[in-house]
Amino acid sequence: MGNGERMITAEVGIRVRYQETDQMGVVYHANYFTWFESARIELLDHMKCPYLKLEKMGFLLPVIQCEAKFLKPAKFDDRLVVRVSLNKVPAARITISYEVFHDEVLLCTGQTIHAFVDRSGRLIRPPNDFLDCAKKYFKK
Amino acid sequence: MGNGERMITAEVGIRVRYQETDQMGVVYHANYFTWFESARIELLDHMKCPYLKLEKMGFLLPVIQCEAKFLKPAKFDDRLVVRVSLNKVPAARITISYEVFHDEVLLCTGQTIHAFVDRSGRLIRPPNDFLDCAKKYFKK
Amino acid sequence: MGNGERMITAEVGIRVRYQETDQMGVVYHANYFTWFESARIELLDHMKCPYLKLEKMGFLLPVIQCEAKFLKPAKFDDRLVVRVSLNKVPAARITISYEVFHDEVLLCTGQTIHAFVDRSGRLIRPPNDFLDCAKKYFKK
Amino acid sequence: MGNGERMITAEVGIRVRYQETDQMGVVYHANYFTWFESARIELLDHMKCPYLKLEKMGFLLPVIQCEAKFLKPAKFDDRLVVRVSLNKVPAARITISYEVFHDEVLLCTGQTIHAFVDRSGRLIRPPNDFLDCAKKYFKK
Repeated sequence: MGNGERMITAEVGIRVRYQETDQMGVVYHANYFTWFESARIELLDHMKCPYLKLEKMGFLLPVIQCEAKFLKPAKFDDRLVVRVSLNKVPAARITISYEVFHDEVLLCTGQTIHAFVDRSGRLIRPPNDFLDCAKKYFKK
Repeated sequence: MGNGERMITAEVGIRVRYQETDQMGVVYHANYFTWFESARIELLDHMKCPYLKLEKMGFLLPVIQCEAKFLKPAKFDDRLVVRVSLNKVPAARITISYEVFHDEVLLCTGQTIHAFVDRSGRLIRPPNDFLDCAKKYFKK
Repeated sequence: MGNGERMITAEVGIRVRYQETDQMGVVYHANYFTWFESARIELLDHMKCPYLKLEKMGFLLPVIQCEAKFLKPAKFDDRLVVRVSLNKVPAARITISYEVFHDEVLLCTGQTIHAFVDRSGRLIRPPNDFLDCAKKYFKK
Repeated sequence: MGNGERMITAEVGIRVRYQETDQMGVVYHANYFTWFESARIELLDHMKCPYLKLEKMGFLLPVIQCEAKFLKPAKFDDRLVVRVSLNKVPAARITISYEVFHDEVLLCTGQTIHAFVDRSGRLIRPPNDFLDCAKKYFKK
């Protein structure tokens, strides 16, 4: 990253809920996307740009694409760490990456892509507050 | 019910989703409340007073109290019937009852209590449309 | 409680997830039961009788009855406290109570009733470990 | 498909639950994966190889990878159709594709990749019953 490109990262702890398991005895796959959400919220907090504030200003950040790879199952009562990172200067589309760990073993990787929309669902430019927050991390 | 009191009933079929099970190998208890919701929506349809329409008119019907008793577990892929009934002329508070059956065996009974509120969460009188719909069933 | 009766209490912090909200803009009612579960797990930890251990020994603790009253809505990103208590010496049926607070305002009260069952779903006596743990709190 | 390659398809109807919405007023993205599950179950039924039967024989079919693209939001009470298809002769990895429609408008596309595992989580060869079912569709 000789060009000064950096990234923004954060972490959130998750304790697996019984409700999140299924009869395979492991966590149901769709629940990882909820944990990704918790990590994303933490990332925005870390950037001093909390999602609640963005939404109150009329900026929504829906998921327009998402994916995950499941390497090993998470289990009830596991205390997981979800590492989240924003690797590129955010543009019209914002790509966020996730890794879920249990005892430093990687269980899952994933990615979500977002766009800012207004209350009516129309695509809009990311709010300046958000861009300014983000650029601090990526500028040299 | 010699006094002409009747009740309004409806039924909805539910096929149990894998996602709704937990590692006990049965349905996680909180999911029955989502099935109660499906049955309630069906009841309002049956009354020609669909919830979507009520909400578009600005009437929300949150749950202010709920309960359930679990007699036998529901399992993955079970095809259940949820019977729902409104037993009293609706007033400020609306009480709705539920029974969940599998192959005519009763698995669960429950109840929800609702009040109408407006978009700001303030308690309001039930909409006339709803009261009129309901009264048709209870009148002699 | 002149007879030396006491109770066992614990608390768990919950940060409301976006996934837990619904289009009313508040938390969907059934999700409180998942938070009750988190609080119950914390209570068992506190009693040095973690649920994971109980289940590994073949003791399951399903919910056989549950209820909740919703006084004020919880909202996205709220940082809640769920207080949980076991008020009676546990017998065949175990009753656990819950209170959900936001900024010390009570949002919800609830209760769950449980019984111990074995892997085949047959009712069994609570494990001695659990009874011994519990009695320590209730004995004079 | 001059080489006789065909595919297996099925459809399932979904009526959107209030519980599945979030405070954006649309369906929370992770819920589409549960609908994909319902469609997959229907596909296996259609192949005369129901998942419940597979699991009873000791074959589990966890999701090892999944993705979705969200084109337009699904809303409360929408009556959706989820079209599911198996496009390739299943091998060690099984790829299943999904399309979610509302009033013939495509809302979402997705894909899940699965592998068969046994009760202990070990990768195993797909059951012959399943392969035989599948091959009927792909054979000339």
